[in-house]
This record gives sequence, C-alpha cells and structure tokens, in this order.
Amino acid sequence: MAAQQVPFEKKEYQRRLALTRQAMGKQGLDVLFVTTPAGMNWLTGYDGWSFYVDQGLIVPLDGEAYWWGRLMDANGARRTTTLSDDYILHYEDFFIQANGCHPMDDLAEKLKMLGFERARIGVEMRAYYYSAAGHIALQSGLPSAQLVDVSGLLDWQRVIKSEAEIAFMRKAARISDKVMTHALALAEPGMRKNHLVGEVMKAAIDGVGEDWGDYPAIMPLLPSGADASAPHLTWSGDTFKTGEATFIEQAGCYRRYHAPLSRTIFLGRPPQFMRDAAEAQMEGLNAGIEAAKAGSRASDIAKALEAALKKVGITRPNRAGYATGLAYPPDWGEHTVSIRFSDDTVLQPGMTIHFMPGIWMDDWGLEMTETILIKDSGPAEALCTVPRKLYVKD
Amino acid sequence: MAAQQVPFEKKEYQRRLALTRQAMGKQGLDVLFVTTPAGMNWLTGYDGWSFYVDQGLIVPLDGEAYWWGRLMDANGARRTTTLSDDYILHYEDFFIQANGCHPMDDLAEKLKMLGFERARIGVEMRAYYYSAAGHIALQSGLPSAQLVDVSGLLDWQRVIKSEAEIAFMRKAARISDKVMTHALALAEPGMRKNHLVGEVMKAAIDGVGEDWGDYPAIMPLLPSGADASAPHLTWSGDTFKTGEATFIEQAGCYRRYHAPLSRTIFLGRPPQFMRDAAEAQMEGLNAGIEAAKAGSRASDIAKALEAALKKVGITRPNRAGYATGLAYPPDWGEHTVSIRFSDDTVLQPGMTIHFMPGIWMDDWGLEMTETILIKDSGPAEALCTVPRKLYVKD
Repeated sequence: MAAQQVPFEKKEYQRRLALTRQAMGKQGLDVLFVTTPAGMNWLTGYDGWSFYVDQGLIVPLDGEAYWWGRLMDANGARRTTTLSDDYILHYEDFFIQANGCHPMDDLAEKLKMLGFERARIGVEMRAYYYSAAGHIALQSGLPSAQLVDVSGLLDWQRVIKSEAEIAFMRKAARISDKVMTHALALAEPGMRKNHLVGEVMKAAIDGVGEDWGDYPAIMPLLPSGADASAPHLTWSGDTFKTGEATFIEQAGCYRRYHAPLSRTIFLGRPPQFMRDAAEAQMEGLNAGIEAAKAGSRASDIAKALEAALKKVGITRPNRAGYATGLAYPPDWGEHTVSIRFSDDTVLQPGMTIHFMPGIWMDDWGLEMTETILIKDSGPAEALCTVPRKLYVKD
Repeated sequence: MAAQQVPFEKKEYQRRLALTRQAMGKQGLDVLFVTTPAGMNWLTGYDGWSFYVDQGLIVPLDGEAYWWGRLMDANGARRTTTLSDDYILHYEDFFIQANGCHPMDDLAEKLKMLGFERARIGVEMRAYYYSAAGHIALQSGLPSAQLVDVSGLLDWQRVIKSEAEIAFMRKAARISDKVMTHALALAEPGMRKNHLVGEVMKAAIDGVGEDWGDYPAIMPLLPSGADASAPHLTWSGDTFKTGEATFIEQAGCYRRYHAPLSRTIFLGRPPQFMRDAAEAQMEGLNAGIEAAKAGSRASDIAKALEAALKKVGITRPNRAGYATGLAYPPDWGEHTVSIRFSDDTVLQPGMTIHFMPGIWMDDWGLEMTETILIKDSGPAEALCTVPRKLYVKD
C-alpha cells in the first residue's frame, strides 16, 4: 500500500508492539492472537469492514506481526498496513460459513507452519469476533498447544493514549461538537427523527475541514419521552413532540478514534423534577471531572457523581463510564477502565474516558456526558465544548 | 411498549415461534438460547443497539419466550416487544466487563430458576455475540445441563420470507435505488469520498416517503482504483480521480430488512479489459438470475455465473452471494444459503439472496450485484431497479 495512508508514524507502531510484547512476556506467552479489530488497527493500521469473518493478527515475541484473514481481504491488508506480502496470510473462501470446517482450522495450520504447534498461545476469549465454535476448532487443530485466555491484555496497552492519539481524539471531538450543535439546532416538534439522524450522519461524515469523518462504532441513539427510559434505542420515523425530552448520544469519529458526547433537549416546558435531575446530573459531571486527576482512582469519579445525584434522590445502579478511543462496531468502549465503585484503576495522564452519568428512569431519561482526558495535573479536560445544560426549546 | 410499534402482526410472530419449535423438536432441545440480534428481533421484535453486551432470548418448547439482558436494556425490551414484564429478565450492571464474573453466570442461574438445570440447551456457538468465555461460563454454571451447538438452527427458519417480510424488503429496495441513483449522480473527479458517503447516508436514513431509513448492518463500501482490489474498504477524505473505477456497495434498510445493491462507476474512459469484464459480469448476473428458479439449487446460480465469466478469462475463487434480509451489524448476510458450487440448497419461493459476483483483481475491482427474490415460478426477481451496466462519466 501507500505507506502514507497509515495513520501513525512507524515509531508509534513500534512503541505499541513493544508494549504488547512486554505484557506477553509477563504472561509467559510465545505468541498472541489478536482478534479485536481495534487491536489489529492499533498494531498495524489494518482497517476494513471485514470483521464479520474470522481474522486476526499473529504476534510472536520477535519479528513482525502477521495478518491472517480471508483471501479476499488480504488485498485490504496490503492496502492499509505496511506489512510485506510474506506477513499477510490468508485462508481460502470455502471456509466461510461452511459446514464441516472452520476458518480456525486454517489458523491452526498456519500457527503450526510458524512453529507454534506446542506453544503457549494467548487468545481473547471475551472478544466479540472470537467465537465459541472458533475457539474449539483452534484448540482441536492444535492439540499440543496451550491456549490461554488473555482477554484485555492488548486492550490495557491501549489505555494511555500517545500525543499523536490525543491529537486524533481532539479531531473527533471537533466533529462531535459540530454534530451535537447541529442536532440541537434542528430538533423541533413535528420533525421526523430519521430526518434529524440523516443530518447528523452527514455532518459527522463530512467532518471538519480537512478532517474527514469516519463511521462511529455505535449509531446515534436518540430516544424521546418514555422511550428515553431505554438507553440503547436508535430511531424511527416518528416525530419529535412537544412535552418530551430526547437525549442525543453520538460520537464524532476521526480515523476510528471516537469522542462520544451526549446532551438532552426538551421541547416545551420541562417539569421541575427533570430540571432538578438535569441540574444534579450537571453537578455530578462537574464534580466527577474535578475528581478525575492523575493518581486518583476510577472509583473516585463514581463517588463524586453519586454525591451530587444523592441530593435529588437519584441512585444509579449502572456504571458511569468507560475508556474510549480507537474502536469498531459494536462498541466504542475499550473494555478496560470502568467508572464504578469497584474499579480501583489508578488514573494516569493520557487516559481518555467517556464519563457517562446517564439517568434512565421508568418513563423518562436524561443524558449529559463528556469524553474526558486525564491530565498530568489538575482536573480532567473535557474534549468537547458544547455547553453543559438541559437544552430547552419552549 | 406501544404494541403498534412492533413491525409485524401477532400471527407472524406466532408463525415464527412455531417454526422455531419444530426445529428445536427435531434436535431434541428443551430450550434454545438465541444470541443473534436478528434472531431476537425476528422472534419478538426486540430492537436496540445493546448487542455489545451479553443478551439473548430463552425459548422453551411451550409458552412465551423470555428476553434476557442487561438491567438498563430491560426497558428497551419493554418498549420494543410485546413481552409482559414477567418475561423480561435482567442481570445486574456489575457483571459488565468485570473480572471474576460473567453475565453468563446470571443466565445459568435464570435457566435453573426456569427449570432447565438438567436440560438439553441449544446455543449458537458460531454467533458473533456468543463469546468463547461466555460459553465456558454458561457451561460451568450449568454442570448438569447439556449445551448443544445449534448454530444456524434459527437462521434457517428465517430463510423463506413471508409476504409481510417481502413487503419490507421491497421498501428497503426502494431506498437502495434512491441511494445508488444519488451516489452515481454525485460522484465526480475532485469530490471527496467522505462527502459522497455523507450524502449517501443522509439519503438512506431519510428513506422514501413514509418509509424511514434504518442503519445498514454494513457501512457503505466504496474503494477506488487499486483500492477496489479489496472488497471491504470503507472510505477516506481522498478525492475521486479521473481514470479510476469506484464500486459502491450499500444497502437500503427498512426496519432492519436490507436490500444490498452494488454498481461501479468509472470516471474518464475505462480501459477495454474493464469494459469486457463488466460486460461479462453483467452477463453472469443475468444468467444467474435466470438460473435462480424454485427447485433449482444455489450451486446452479454459481455455475451460470462461472460460464459467463469464463469467456473473459476470469475465475472467481470466492462465493457469489448469500441469503440476506433481517440483519444487524456486523453483517447483512444471514449465514444460511451461499451461492457456491458446494451449496446444494434447493431454492424455494420467498428466499432473498444478495447475488454478489464481485470481481477483485490485483489492482482493480468491479462490483455489480442484485438482491434477488426466488419466485413461485420462472427466474428470480431483482428487487432493485437501477440499470445494470458499468457507469461511465467521461
């Protein structure tokens, strides 16, 4: 491929590979099989909508990593990574969704070929695209190897973003700002929700100036009224109605890096309980951002939020955020740090977290969220700039 | 929820449940755990972007099915299905992406509670969102139960579409037509590709008249020039260039039903070999549609295509299509029928197939595809109407 298309410089990829190998060494692994599309991209730049079939990276302790995937996607690996042809391995098309064989049969053969027949092999058993059937096929093709579940091993190497990655996150945040501002300006009684989403997606993909927009790992979520009691509904052709709150959750995406951002808009005059809840949510958000300091813990953010919500009698049974950044569908979360009482992760500069104190009650909901960056000192920085408040069009 | 929001009538859901139970009976299952989001939607109407966490349907041999998922998504089940509260089961939020426990621990407890401690339980081990770790957690929580891999059992019940479903597919096809016509009109040298995609997504989600557009299970794919050698690249901020072919693969989506459609546009004067290949591809497409008759086999379509491509010396190592319809990311294929020599599935009226004779060479590619419906008699019907040809803007 044209190497200039790879998003980052060579030394950034070398840093990532070195970090990964350090973690592999600690687990005594001979080789790591990386299934997550985000992990594949992070290590090599590989980018394509091919994760609906089996694929992955084979990362030995020395030398280059190997891309492994479907025959027709090998050209995609050539076009989007700097791997040379010798490091791009493929399986034949007949393995796809076939009975009596599995693509992982081929992976087992390839791993043998590379000398890993009796190796200690790390696999990601919690990853979306590493299926139960695939695991069994791989184990059965490598009876003398030891498959070790190291879910999260690679994800945790991604948790502190480099300066180059933070620059990408800022570009994503500019897109989020643009999209949210546009959505809040457009929403009005009688407008069909799908029309708003069409505008939102166009704004997101148009991007900002030279910075083109990529597809988000989660489609816009924007339930209204009683539907806003459910956090993960998408949209329909229904119209926005007076007397209803709608939360809009979306993320600008720049080259697979996400900056999720949510705001709520009420059409008409919001009831006092909702104003109070929004006020408390904003206080909780502000308090959590104050508490999100290097050296503090993820749980400290959750505690600061809880104190603010308690004042209006709201208890949240849900976690209040998670690490975010480089991601593919179905999730823009990175599956590492969680904002909850039980998470004692020490916050470190360069961590990026979607701080997400959504409130979902029985027949209404409110979201006001920020993607925050942990700084060297002082409170976290919210990457987006859309003012924090309950938006009201009366 | 407001029951009128469920896409189909009650008798349609009853038909589906009866079909599923018939298949369960043949496998001697006591209960089926449905993981695929499309399967969940097909049986109950459930719709939400919650498939990034563990969830599923528990389908016993009698009575209603149970929805099972994350606490915060239970409200989504209430809003998008007609299940009563007693049939909506949830697990607590602390299970999410936690160490030392797995949501499937809760599923095991729920299955015990429902009397399935020693049951023969069907699971979908090839499904994207049924992870290897989840399988092991479920088995370990139900040591006396027998977990049986019945991947595809439910998918195969979906392969023949009802009249109501075909009506949805036709709406999706109208959206595909609109999107493709718009894209072909807009593409020109100097236009940035992300700007075209922004327009395409807006057109798709705006929908056609009352028929609002839903998100497609795969984002638009539109590689140009040498990138078109790789079928699954999405887009960038690069411009369309004179002298390059771009294929555009996309699907209109109406309430989760898809009608994928691809066309290729060449900016400038295409070389003769590309014209010849496009001509052969079109002939192969036409011949395959002629061959796609009820009573014939999936492999007959592949053979008809091959004969046409042979004339210009092109051999395709890839399958040439798959069943399509109701789908969620990451794939609009249904993982049942494949158009390839080894697939002897007898074609039946009501099957809908994305007939996909894409050509991906070393440094160029061409796509011209159709979503076809197998008819009671005679050749298949292509659901979209965009003329079949290589589009050229000289």
